[in-house]
Amino acid sequence: MHQTVADLGERALIDRIRLRLPAQPTWVVLGIGDDAAVVEPVRNRLEVITTDSLVEGVHFDRAFAGPADIGHKALAVNLSDLAAMGAAPRAAVLSLILPASTAIADVDALVDSMAALAARARIAIVGGNIAASPGPLVVDVTVTGSVHRRRILTRSGARPGDELYVSGSIGMAAAGLRRLRADRTSTAPETFRYLRPEPRTRLGILLGRNRVARACIDLSDGLAEAVRQMAAASGVGALVDASALPIEPRSLSVQEAISGGEDYELLFAVSPKHRRRLAEVQRLSREVPIRKIGRVTGDRGVSAEINGTREELPSGFQHFSHP
Amino acid sequence: MHQTVADLGERALIDRIRLRLPAQPTWVVLGIGDDAAVVEPVRNRLEVITTDSLVEGVHFDRAFAGPADIGHKALAVNLSDLAAMGAAPRAAVLSLILPASTAIADVDALVDSMAALAARARIAIVGGNIAASPGPLVVDVTVTGSVHRRRILTRSGARPGDELYVSGSIGMAAAGLRRLRADRTSTAPETFRYLRPEPRTRLGILLGRNRVARACIDLSDGLAEAVRQMAAASGVGALVDASALPIEPRSLSVQEAISGGEDYELLFAVSPKHRRRLAEVQRLSREVPIRKIGRVTGDRGVSAEINGTREELPSGFQHFSHP
Repeated sequence: MHQTVADLGERALIDRIRLRLPAQPTWVVLGIGDDAAVVEPVRNRLEVITTDSLVEGVHFDRAFAGPADIGHKALAVNLSDLAAMGAAPRAAVLSLILPASTAIADVDALVDSMAALAARARIAIVGGNIAASPGPLVVDVTVTGSVHRRRILTRSGARPGDELYVSGSIGMAAAGLRRLRADRTSTAPETFRYLRPEPRTRLGILLGRNRVARACIDLSDGLAEAVRQMAAASGVGALVDASALPIEPRSLSVQEAISGGEDYELLFAVSPKHRRRLAEVQRLSREVPIRKIGRVTGDRGVSAEINGTREELPSGFQHFSHP
Repeated sequence: MHQTVADLGERALIDRIRLRLPAQPTWVVLGIGDDAAVVEPVRNRLEVITTDSLVEGVHFDRAFAGPADIGHKALAVNLSDLAAMGAAPRAAVLSLILPASTAIADVDALVDSMAALAARARIAIVGGNIAASPGPLVVDVTVTGSVHRRRILTRSGARPGDELYVSGSIGMAAAGLRRLRADRTSTAPETFRYLRPEPRTRLGILLGRNRVARACIDLSDGLAEAVRQMAAASGVGALVDASALPIEPRSLSVQEAISGGEDYELLFAVSPKHRRRLAEVQRLSREVPIRKIGRVTGDRGVSAEINGTREELPSGFQHFSHP
């Protein structure tokens, strides 16, 4: 029978996790093992902090999301929030709430996958907490990042006349989830996008550093919701050109693609006078396509032009929302 | 019938929480409402970060812990970790994982109570996350603090010959929990200590700032476990004088008092040559009694002298531990 966290105990589990993480960078003064971690802040930078959790039965289904998927995604969704602020990742703390029956091998896989993404994103996992769960597995991650004061990307800076851009493609994650619900063993490319979203860390930093974007938000709850949130925060409206949307797979309808969440792409607003700067960003982050999908308007409406008719954008996913 | 979080929805709930929090201090550049919060670090200080969660059915029982107790304690246990590092509290993010049936009034009470402690501890609640829970209520809090590089209190600095001190009293929280389990309506003083622990923020900062303590740890898992952890981290032993322990209530046995967790007092090691500095700290934090309870030894044993005989210290609470 496999060994569980109940066989190992909390302190042995913490030691095991620590040994699976890479050596801490020199700016981590004190890592896992004391009452708290101690890190050096980045000089002359502001600190960005955000938290996000994955809850079994709500954000993932263990029937098709393995522990490595869960570990990756729990960090990725937080890195996506840092990217949307233009912040460089710095430190992460990991709160694991585990059923006593959780296999040690699953904890190992979760940690290894998170550590692999952390290494690529250059974020140090400096501490955390482990508790028992009488119910679902919960992975709660908090990350910090650093950003120059004048390079912060907020949701609220969009101005009428700005052009709206989106990175990558939209719809893949929603299509992947649908595939997995129909066939939990599916390995279609869109299932990978759903299970292992890639945060747009480099693009977010470039958009802030080069002062290209006036406003930015990530697509955690879908494109339509992101446009809504940016417009509301900026006190403007928006018009999306449905024919310009980078929808993948092509079989998705516009409604499906703009409503589907979890693509973790970036939506950002750029003044037309900064098109050259944007071209430079595109050159530097050439692995990520960027597509113009609409514009910011002076009225307060948020709509899409679909086959010549305007439709109001739908609202996105909310916890506890009515069906 | 009372209104639940399912009636309100996620975004309205976030707005409601934001409105219940006090105005953000000027160093919070961007608070709740964007992809992440942005704060100014403290100049020339290191940053301390820690996370801790409270899980329904594991850390609290809603039969006797009300939402105000839960909100207070979820922040208090994190502030206690900052105190044990000698760090001044700075920013907190709050991750709430709520059953859909949670009453809005309970969320209000939880947030109000946490906000009241945050105001007293001068920590700003700058952001967070809300998710639905298919099981228990989970409150996960991450806090940051600031500390001068040469004022950090770790667990590992104790040296043979140092004297061991503890703040406040030990045993109250364990006694309070026992009372509540016998009578969930009990309002005995020890129940309050269990439900609303007071982090030793000021004492921790003073111990670091005045360079009094060579090592420090909080008593989350009981005195015996704290002595064990400090000794192990410092590579030393310890001998506790049971007759000197500030046990309350007096009816508790030594074994009960040193094994009981959740007192959130501080244990710290002081070189005998710094007794005058300690007296100064005692004067400045005079509302908190400090008691000498033993000394650090050169061998690796951790024991207590109880009525003239030496006994090894027991191990403290661990999640997933064997009975």
